[in-house]
Amino acid sequence: MKLSEVVQAVNGTCEADGSIEIRAMASLLEAREGDISFLANQKYAPQMKETKASAVLVAQDYAGETAAALIRVEDPNKAFASLSPIFGPKPVVREPGIHATAVIGEGVTLGKDIYIGPYTVIEDGATIGDGTVIDGMVFIAQHVQIGKQCHLYPQVNIRESCILGDRVILHAGVKIGTDGYGYTVEIGAQGPVINKVPQIGIVEIGNDVEIGSNTCVDRARFGRTRVGDCVKIDNLVQIGHNVQIAPFVGIIAQAGIAGSAKIETGALIWSQAGISGHLTVHERAQVAPQAGVKEDVPEGEYVAGTPAIPKRKFAETLLFPRLLDKLKRKVVDLEAKVKALEAR
Amino acid sequence: MKLSEVVQAVNGTCEADGSIEIRAMASLLEAREGDISFLANQKYAPQMKETKASAVLVAQDYAGETAAALIRVEDPNKAFASLSPIFGPKPVVREPGIHATAVIGEGVTLGKDIYIGPYTVIEDGATIGDGTVIDGMVFIAQHVQIGKQCHLYPQVNIRESCILGDRVILHAGVKIGTDGYGYTVEIGAQGPVINKVPQIGIVEIGNDVEIGSNTCVDRARFGRTRVGDCVKIDNLVQIGHNVQIAPFVGIIAQAGIAGSAKIETGALIWSQAGISGHLTVHERAQVAPQAGVKEDVPEGEYVAGTPAIPKRKFAETLLFPRLLDKLKRKVVDLEAKVKALEAR
Amino acid sequence: MKLSEVVQAVNGTCEADGSIEIRAMASLLEAREGDISFLANQKYAPQMKETKASAVLVAQDYAGETAAALIRVEDPNKAFASLSPIFGPKPVVREPGIHATAVIGEGVTLGKDIYIGPYTVIEDGATIGDGTVIDGMVFIAQHVQIGKQCHLYPQVNIRESCILGDRVILHAGVKIGTDGYGYTVEIGAQGPVINKVPQIGIVEIGNDVEIGSNTCVDRARFGRTRVGDCVKIDNLVQIGHNVQIAPFVGIIAQAGIAGSAKIETGALIWSQAGISGHLTVHERAQVAPQAGVKEDVPEGEYVAGTPAIPKRKFAETLLFPRLLDKLKRKVVDLEAKVKALEAR
Repeated sequence: MKLSEVVQAVNGTCEADGSIEIRAMASLLEAREGDISFLANQKYAPQMKETKASAVLVAQDYAGETAAALIRVEDPNKAFASLSPIFGPKPVVREPGIHATAVIGEGVTLGKDIYIGPYTVIEDGATIGDGTVIDGMVFIAQHVQIGKQCHLYPQVNIRESCILGDRVILHAGVKIGTDGYGYTVEIGAQGPVINKVPQIGIVEIGNDVEIGSNTCVDRARFGRTRVGDCVKIDNLVQIGHNVQIAPFVGIIAQAGIAGSAKIETGALIWSQAGISGHLTVHERAQVAPQAGVKEDVPEGEYVAGTPAIPKRKFAETLLFPRLLDKLKRKVVDLEAKVKALEAR
Repeated sequence: MKLSEVVQAVNGTCEADGSIEIRAMASLLEAREGDISFLANQKYAPQMKETKASAVLVAQDYAGETAAALIRVEDPNKAFASLSPIFGPKPVVREPGIHATAVIGEGVTLGKDIYIGPYTVIEDGATIGDGTVIDGMVFIAQHVQIGKQCHLYPQVNIRESCILGDRVILHAGVKIGTDGYGYTVEIGAQGPVINKVPQIGIVEIGNDVEIGSNTCVDRARFGRTRVGDCVKIDNLVQIGHNVQIAPFVGIIAQAGIAGSAKIETGALIWSQAGISGHLTVHERAQVAPQAGVKEDVPEGEYVAGTPAIPKRKFAETLLFPRLLDKLKRKVVDLEAKVKALEAR
Repeated sequence: MKLSEVVQAVNGTCEADGSIEIRAMASLLEAREGDISFLANQKYAPQMKETKASAVLVAQDYAGETAAALIRVEDPNKAFASLSPIFGPKPVVREPGIHATAVIGEGVTLGKDIYIGPYTVIEDGATIGDGTVIDGMVFIAQHVQIGKQCHLYPQVNIRESCILGDRVILHAGVKIGTDGYGYTVEIGAQGPVINKVPQIGIVEIGNDVEIGSNTCVDRARFGRTRVGDCVKIDNLVQIGHNVQIAPFVGIIAQAGIAGSAKIETGALIWSQAGISGHLTVHERAQVAPQAGVKEDVPEGEYVAGTPAIPKRKFAETLLFPRLLDKLKRKVVDLEAKVKALEAR
C-alpha cells in the first residue's frame, strides 16, 4: 500500500514522498524498512532516532528527529490500531458447519451454530454448546461437556467426562484430563512392584478460561481438578491432579502446580515457578518467576526463590556478597588492632 | 442419586434426610454441595467442620461435629472406592477393531485384539502387539515396534524404527524419537556455518513404562536412547538423545535430562529439575524439585539447589541470613570492645 | 549380521570368532551384548574394560585389554559411521505426492516436488514452496507461507498468516502462532473484568531454522514475533509474543523467553533458563541452565543464577559456605583474644 493511501486511511497529514510502499506494522524497535510504526508514549521517543520504520504515526505537535516519514494524527495509538485490518493477518472466520470428515459418535448433543473442522473426532455422549468452534484434528472423548461459544484450536485432546464452561479458549495442543501421576510401590519377593493408582476423576473448567498451547491439566484421582472462571493460563504449563484453581488466577508459561495444591482468587503464578502439592497460595498472592513454593503463601504476599520466601527477604539475600565482603574487611581490621593491643 | 440409595449401596446407616441428591465424589476440602466425601484418616478429622460435602462416609464410632449428613460404614475408604462406578466418569472401553479411517501401511504386522482409532496412521513395516489400544490421531512411523497391551492416547507421534515394550502407556501428545539437538559449527569465509549432526539412532522403551502428556524423548545420535522397565514419567518432561534410564526410575513433571546422562535404578527426579549431559545419577538417588545437577549424584544421595549439592548442605545455606546477622552483631560488639581497649 | 561380515564391510582385520551375531551400534558405555562400538578418542580407552559390546572398532595399534572382539581399522570413527546404513534405522524417504486424505483449501499455491501426508489440512490461501515435506496430521491455517525444502513433522500447527523461510524443520507437535498472553484488567462494579488483548500479529521464521518437539512460538500482539536465520531451538521451549531472535541463536530444551525480549546474534540460552520480557541478551552472550535473566546481558557475557549475574560472580557465591565458616572461626578467635586483653 502506498504511503499516501495510508495517510488518507488514518486521516492524517504527511510531508514525505507518498509513493513509498508500506507493507507491515511493527513497534519502533522491531520495525524494518517498509514497516509503519507509531509513537504514542513519550517514553519511547528516543527510539525515533533508531527506528528503521519507513513511516511513523505521531501526534500533531511532535518535533523530534527521525529518518522515518512522519504521519501526524490526532491519536497515534488509535490510528495505528485502525490499520490492523489492512496490514494485520486476515482474521479467520469459522462459519457454522460440520466438515464432512469429522467423526461424530452416537448420542452426541450439538448446539446451534457450531463449527467442527476436518478430522475432528467427537465421541459418544459428548455435548457441545451453541456457537462453539472446534477446529480440525481435535479429539473429544466420551461424555465430555463443552459450553457455549468456546474455541478449541487444532490438536487439542479432552479425555472422557471432562467439563468445560462457556467461552473457553483452548489453544493448539492443550491436553485436558490426562491421568495424574500416581503409583503405589510394594516390595515383593522379586523386587519392587509398582501399581498404577486409578485416576477416575475429571477436570472441570469454568467460564471465560483461556489455556495456552501444549499446556496439560490432569484429571483428578477422584472428584475434580478444577480451573475456576476467568483463569488465564499460558503455554506449556503443568496442572497436576486435584489442583483447585479459584477464579481470576493467572499462570504464566512453563509454571507447574503439583497435585492437590489450591490457588486462591486473584493469585498470580509467574513463569517457570513451581508449586508443591497439597498447599495453598492464598488470595492475590504472587509467586515470582522460577520460585519454588514449599509452604502456604499468605494472602497478598509476593514470594521468590527456592524455597520461596517473601520477596523482601529474598532481596536481602542478594546483598550477601557485599555484606560478607564488608564483614571480612572489618574482621581483618580487628585482627590487626587486636595484634597491636596484644603487643602493647 | 438419592442419599438413601447411596446409603444402601455402601451398606451403611444414616440418620439424615435420605431424599437429598448426591451428584459427585470429592475429598473433604474440595467438596461442594451435592458431593459425597469420606473420612478414613483421623489426620483429616478437622476438615469435617469446613467441608461443604452434603454427605460424608465415616467409621461406625465417629463422633465429631459436621454439617454434612453422616453415613456410617465399616471401612470408609473401601466404601468410597465402591462408589466410583456410580459417580466417577464412565470408563472408556475400546473394543478390538480398526476404525475405517485408519491408514495402515504395507507390511504392517497387527497382533490379535487390537484397537485402532479414527484418523490414526501406521506406516509401512510397523508391528503392533496383541491387545494394544491405539487411540485416534496417533502417528506411528515406519518400522516402529510396539509390544502387547499398550495404550497410546490421541496425538502421540512415534518416529521411525523406535521400539516399545509391553504394557506401555503413552498419554496424549507424547513425542517419541524426535531428532536430538546436535550441530557442528564451522567458521567459514562468510561467517559461521551450522551443520546438523544426523540423529540416526532410535528410542527403546521397556515394559510397563508410563509417559505423561506432551513429554518428548529424543532418538539417539546413534544407538539408542533407553527408557527401562517400570519407568514412570510425568507430563512435559524432556529426555535428550542417548539418555539411559534404568528400570524403576520416576521423573516428575517438567524435569529435563540432557544428552547421554545416565539415571540408575530406583532414582527419582522431581519436578522442574535439570540433569546436565554425560553424567550419572546413581541408584536410588533423588534430585529435588528445580535442582540443577552438574556432577554425578552418589548412590542414595538426595541433592538440591543449582548447582545441586547434598540436601543437608543445601539446608545449611538457608540458615545463612541468620548466621550472617549473628556474625555481624558479634563484629560490632568486638569493634566496641577493641576501641575501649585501645583507649585504655 | 555376522561379525566376519562386519569386518569385511569396514575393511578391517579381526582375530576373534567371526560367527558371532552383531545386531546394533552403541557407544562403549551404552553397548549391550550383540552391539558393535568404537574407540576413536583415547579419553574413552578406560571404558574398554567395562564395555559390554560384543565387538569394538579400534585403531591398528590399539593394545589395551577388553573382553570384546577387536576389529582393527584405519579410522575407527569413519568405520563406525559407515555402519549406520546397515544397523541404523532405515531412513524415511518421502516421495513427492499428496496423500488422498489431505484436505487442501482454495487458493493454495503448491510448489514442485511436495510431499503432503495423510490427514494433513492446508487451509485457504496458503503457499508451500518446492520440495517441502509436510507429514501427516499437520494443520496449516489460512494464508500461511512456507518456503522451500522445509520438513514439518506430524501434529505441527501453524496458525493463520505466519511465514516460514526455506529449509525450516519443525518437529512433531510444534505450535507456531498461538495467541500471546495478554489481558487488561478493569475493576468494575461487580469485581474485576478481564479483557483479552487481540493478538493480531504473526510469527516470521527465517531460513535454516530447526525447532524441537512441542515447542511453542506465540504470534505478535501486532507486527511480528521473529526467529532469525539459522536459529536452532530444542524441545518444549516457550517463545513469547513479539520476541525478536537474531540469526545463529541457540535455545536449549525447556527454556522460556518472555514477550518482546530481544536475543542478539550468536547468543546461547541453555536449558530451563528464563528471560524476562522487554530486555536484550546481547551478541554472543550465554545464559546458564536454569538462570533467570532480569536485566540486559552485555555482549559476550555468561550469566548464571536467579536473578542472573556474571558467571564469575555467581561462582563466588558458591564459596560463601566456606567463607562464612572461616569468618566465624576468626570471630570466635578474636572474641577469646579480646576477652584476654580485657582481663589484663
